[in-house]
Amino acid sequence: MTGIDLLLEDGLVLTMDDSYRLFNPGAVAIDQGLIVGIGEQAELEREFEPRARFACRGRIVMPGLVNAHTHAPMSLLRGLADDLRLDVWLLGYMIPVERKFVDPDFVRLGTKLACAEMIRSGVTTFADLYYFEEEVARVTAEVGMRALCSQTVLKFPAPDATSFEDSLAACREFIVRWKGHPLIVPSVGPHAPYTCTAEILKACAELAVELDVPLHTHLAETALEVENSRRENGMPVIPYVKRQTLLEAKVLAAHCVHIDEGEMRTLLHAGAGIAHNPSSNLKLASGVAPVVKMLEVGLNVGIGTDGPASNNDLDMFEETRLAAFLAKGISGIPTALPARVALAMATRLGARALHLGDITGSLEVGKRADIILIDPSDVHSSPGFQRSPDAVYSRLVYSAHAADVTDVMVNGRWLMRNRQLLTLNQDELLRNAQEIASRIDAFLVERETSVLSKLVAIGGTTEAESFEVQVKVRLEDPEPVLAKMESPELTTIRHRHYREYDTYFVFADPEQGRLRYREDEFIDESGEVYNVRYRLTLTGPAREQEFQHAVLLSRSRFLAAATHSLRFYREYFQPGSEIEVQKDRRRWLVRYRDTEFFINLDRVDKPALHGHFLEVKSRTWSRRDAENKAQMILDILSLLGAGEAEATPSEYVELAYPGS
Amino acid sequence: MTGIDLLLEDGLVLTMDDSYRLFNPGAVAIDQGLIVGIGEQAELEREFEPRARFACRGRIVMPGLVNAHTHAPMSLLRGLADDLRLDVWLLGYMIPVERKFVDPDFVRLGTKLACAEMIRSGVTTFADLYYFEEEVARVTAEVGMRALCSQTVLKFPAPDATSFEDSLAACREFIVRWKGHPLIVPSVGPHAPYTCTAEILKACAELAVELDVPLHTHLAETALEVENSRRENGMPVIPYVKRQTLLEAKVLAAHCVHIDEGEMRTLLHAGAGIAHNPSSNLKLASGVAPVVKMLEVGLNVGIGTDGPASNNDLDMFEETRLAAFLAKGISGIPTALPARVALAMATRLGARALHLGDITGSLEVGKRADIILIDPSDVHSSPGFQRSPDAVYSRLVYSAHAADVTDVMVNGRWLMRNRQLLTLNQDELLRNAQEIASRIDAFLVERETSVLSKLVAIGGTTEAESFEVQVKVRLEDPEPVLAKMESPELTTIRHRHYREYDTYFVFADPEQGRLRYREDEFIDESGEVYNVRYRLTLTGPAREQEFQHAVLLSRSRFLAAATHSLRFYREYFQPGSEIEVQKDRRRWLVRYRDTEFFINLDRVDKPALHGHFLEVKSRTWSRRDAENKAQMILDILSLLGAGEAEATPSEYVELAYPGS
Repeated sequence: MTGIDLLLEDGLVLTMDDSYRLFNPGAVAIDQGLIVGIGEQAELEREFEPRARFACRGRIVMPGLVNAHTHAPMSLLRGLADDLRLDVWLLGYMIPVERKFVDPDFVRLGTKLACAEMIRSGVTTFADLYYFEEEVARVTAEVGMRALCSQTVLKFPAPDATSFEDSLAACREFIVRWKGHPLIVPSVGPHAPYTCTAEILKACAELAVELDVPLHTHLAETALEVENSRRENGMPVIPYVKRQTLLEAKVLAAHCVHIDEGEMRTLLHAGAGIAHNPSSNLKLASGVAPVVKMLEVGLNVGIGTDGPASNNDLDMFEETRLAAFLAKGISGIPTALPARVALAMATRLGARALHLGDITGSLEVGKRADIILIDPSDVHSSPGFQRSPDAVYSRLVYSAHAADVTDVMVNGRWLMRNRQLLTLNQDELLRNAQEIASRIDAFLVERETSVLSKLVAIGGTTEAESFEVQVKVRLEDPEPVLAKMESPELTTIRHRHYREYDTYFVFADPEQGRLRYREDEFIDESGEVYNVRYRLTLTGPAREQEFQHAVLLSRSRFLAAATHSLRFYREYFQPGSEIEVQKDRRRWLVRYRDTEFFINLDRVDKPALHGHFLEVKSRTWSRRDAENKAQMILDILSLLGAGEAEATPSEYVELAYPGS
Repeated sequence: MTGIDLLLEDGLVLTMDDSYRLFNPGAVAIDQGLIVGIGEQAELEREFEPRARFACRGRIVMPGLVNAHTHAPMSLLRGLADDLRLDVWLLGYMIPVERKFVDPDFVRLGTKLACAEMIRSGVTTFADLYYFEEEVARVTAEVGMRALCSQTVLKFPAPDATSFEDSLAACREFIVRWKGHPLIVPSVGPHAPYTCTAEILKACAELAVELDVPLHTHLAETALEVENSRRENGMPVIPYVKRQTLLEAKVLAAHCVHIDEGEMRTLLHAGAGIAHNPSSNLKLASGVAPVVKMLEVGLNVGIGTDGPASNNDLDMFEETRLAAFLAKGISGIPTALPARVALAMATRLGARALHLGDITGSLEVGKRADIILIDPSDVHSSPGFQRSPDAVYSRLVYSAHAADVTDVMVNGRWLMRNRQLLTLNQDELLRNAQEIASRIDAFLVERETSVLSKLVAIGGTTEAESFEVQVKVRLEDPEPVLAKMESPELTTIRHRHYREYDTYFVFADPEQGRLRYREDEFIDESGEVYNVRYRLTLTGPAREQEFQHAVLLSRSRFLAAATHSLRFYREYFQPGSEIEVQKDRRRWLVRYRDTEFFINLDRVDKPALHGHFLEVKSRTWSRRDAENKAQMILDILSLLGAGEAEATPSEYVELAYPGS
């Protein structure tokens, strides 16, 4: 008889090993955190002399679930912003909030909250990818869970690094410090091909190979990513990253929604693991990954929840059920991805995808004791059938809930007993999480009190205002003015011809001003468009001052390059209404008495306004300067023969839609 | 101040009314089971004088969920058989088990189990469609839930009726007895267009119109159903049922996975409600219903779990989340079906789909008090954000679990308090359910001990055996035999020419015998196929007796028309291996000395066997008869000039694959 620390006895033991062995009544012998025996109850009774016993009667005893892809600290952002376009969600909410709030404290608290949820839903191992990943590792180790912790590297400044060189250096130090830890596998996390350069991908792969750790990244998540890769790199995502030597590392690739069979084989030959995230892929409308084909090809496909901000939970029961359901519904084949295989994805195959298949993912002698107990007797999964050997998998995948997990052990240590967390203070955690959420709420509420602060939040502009002094007059015939542009007192520095497409966002509160999205088409002499420019201008509500003959000190304006689409801004700013104005503009930058002015000769085509308009304007920084320029603008009008023309203080949008 | 029975006070009150009003802190005033006031806490405090108060601080107070389509008693069959083709699941398992087990006791117990699960997951109203529906109604009323109870009518014999006339009559009596009940709305349930005749559909519609009750049915669930409808009726499902006057009733149509916009408008104009069942539609690989378009068109689309045998639970939280996720993932539009609308489908729109919109589905003055309380503070849905008015819907749809429902009230009566069921004995229920499950297990285990009993279980054959006495000889040249068929001693009663395609299912245990699936193509004189016949034959393993010259008393055989496809039988019987044999057969039914014999002249084409074979055989019922016929068979062989030909006791499959 061999002495051992603990015998889990008299349960329905699912090994989830390659041959799906199952013992009922079965037992698991554990010593020093290691599984040293597994089999029929009677057999293990004969073989081992346990110093402690744990009765599992009426319970399913199985390997802990493996959450193959998440961003644990984002548990603090769950439900912050939903039902939005991916770019609005990411650029409008996640990134600004992360920029403001993500620091080591946030990461520690978010990781604790995520660990609490994952333990309570039967997860023993997870693959994480976030900022300040060393804090994720530290908290996870304290809590006692197992994790692949991947330090994010990307081409943009991040909450924990101002450059990719910084984050790569930090990543190396993190790995060197943690490698060999009994619970944590540190690793390299190049965020995605489209957020890294080729150089960054190569450097990450080299680091992972050099230090012999996994590399965790997002690949081929959306059709757009693949389309862009084809356009920019001349090939889809997998061949592209292969060319950057990424696949020389032990890769864990999240998503792979849009890959073909050839790419699957490339990943297979590289020994890469896949994390399938069905909820996130549906919720963010990325699509449905071809997991049945991936499994056929032989890939190790695990299941992940993705970050709780895009799911919005870390429930692997829900995720596994959805993986099984979706595979059937999308293929039209009701026998696709049966329950047993779905559960293998959530355990054994997931562990292999994380390159941790030797130590966890199934109950086998020699693996670490990462074990959960499930009570299958609640009303929602009763009654239970015995006839088919698959019935127990069906029960776990199609009707069990996360709350049916009663006990959780990682590496031989109990983390939950009878649904009570042993290594976390749940009440304190909830209080602290709610406190952060309230601060984030306050930040966003403050931000969203004004269009300007929303604009600033997405990095759309600095807060610098600009003012203009300007006049606008209506002309029946532009030809005389055009002729006088040759006047020797005006030196033309630059002349351009545009078609301008303006969309004004109008808000219910007029104090918000108007936000203009302008598309300028630059037209050459033959009438061809040779360049396009997109700009945002936020115009304040009040005119500053009016001089004689409707010369204005114009409204305060905030300018920004429009780097996103009109649709993006529409969803992000949610205007009360919109107005479109199109015009043809000939524009001169001229010097008049050593001062620069813009002269615009405009024709408003949509809605069609009678005649042409002449504008003369100049930037200004002081009241005195504005008064001088107002006088010069009147002189220029006279010089152009338009001194007597009808002047208007209105903007085109107001002329086009009086009262707007 | 108005005196009232109860004030639910100080909660976050979601009305789920058309304008999504929300009160925080809010209150609900209830008197005699009716909502008599709803609004801000302070306001209701001023207006009402409650005889009892219920503190809802920290809870979300909202209308109970409406499960828009289920078969509640099938909770007793959950997990019985999964990951199967729809026909194998239905014809191989559900129908045989229902035929054997479904009686009033089964229906009562199953309804109780389903009610327990639904109450525990926040459902207050459900639409049911099953057999012995009056028992469903009785139990539901006792438990205190609200339901639309629809008595199944179909063209096949059912557990509760031997003919459609019987079930229609029972349905009428049920409706007359229950109409006007405070909780139960009785209704007519024609199962589906393909399980009813046009006459049944018309009769059901007439009954529903006459008695002014809803009509609950399955429409356009699978692409195959629509395809068949087009072929058989010349039009898709919705126009077809309209032509049968079905849409003159107040219809609740489950599924509608495969309908187009025109059909949606037809349903809209008929005032029909829809039950969307995303889990079931995925799990059974039926597809994804176009719910976003249905909502755009203006249909009342509720959400249903479908029966727990095809889901496998009754969890409306899971179902609602999946509806929202799928709409986005399938359309590619992440803003499709936002959380608020998904929750409206699970409440207000569902109630309208059931034609119960006036009395439940939202918290409004004048509606019945069908109310649930939810604790949103568990780790999986923490923290909570306040900024967006949609955040609470997001929290409920994307992260809340069924187990977060703490209290449930229907019609002003508490059915659950602090997760304890008040009107059901959960432990007793689980014991009784498990007892039935064990009986079903035993029945299926017994059945699946033999291929024969599996064959009988699907109605494939009666248990009558047949024996043949026969001989088979090999011929180099068939022409001399053909010439002698004209012999005056043989009277040809019938002559046919076939091509026969046989697939043999071979089982690991030879005692099971072999199951043959045979496709007979009938060939006319010009060589054209003019008819096809499919038959199953189960051949026992042992030869009964051998007479002289290899004349055999053949193996016991069970014969049946093969009404399903080869694929069906393959999945249902799960043979160890398969063998295919193809042959050309000319067959004569002849009379010889007042006794009928079959004479076959065969050529085995796949695998190609040398020469031709002549078989002479006759059915037999007794040993003495067999001996007589054995002698006559030898006489016929001589008559045909084949008395000296090489005889073989083997079947073609054995000649083709020696050792099989």
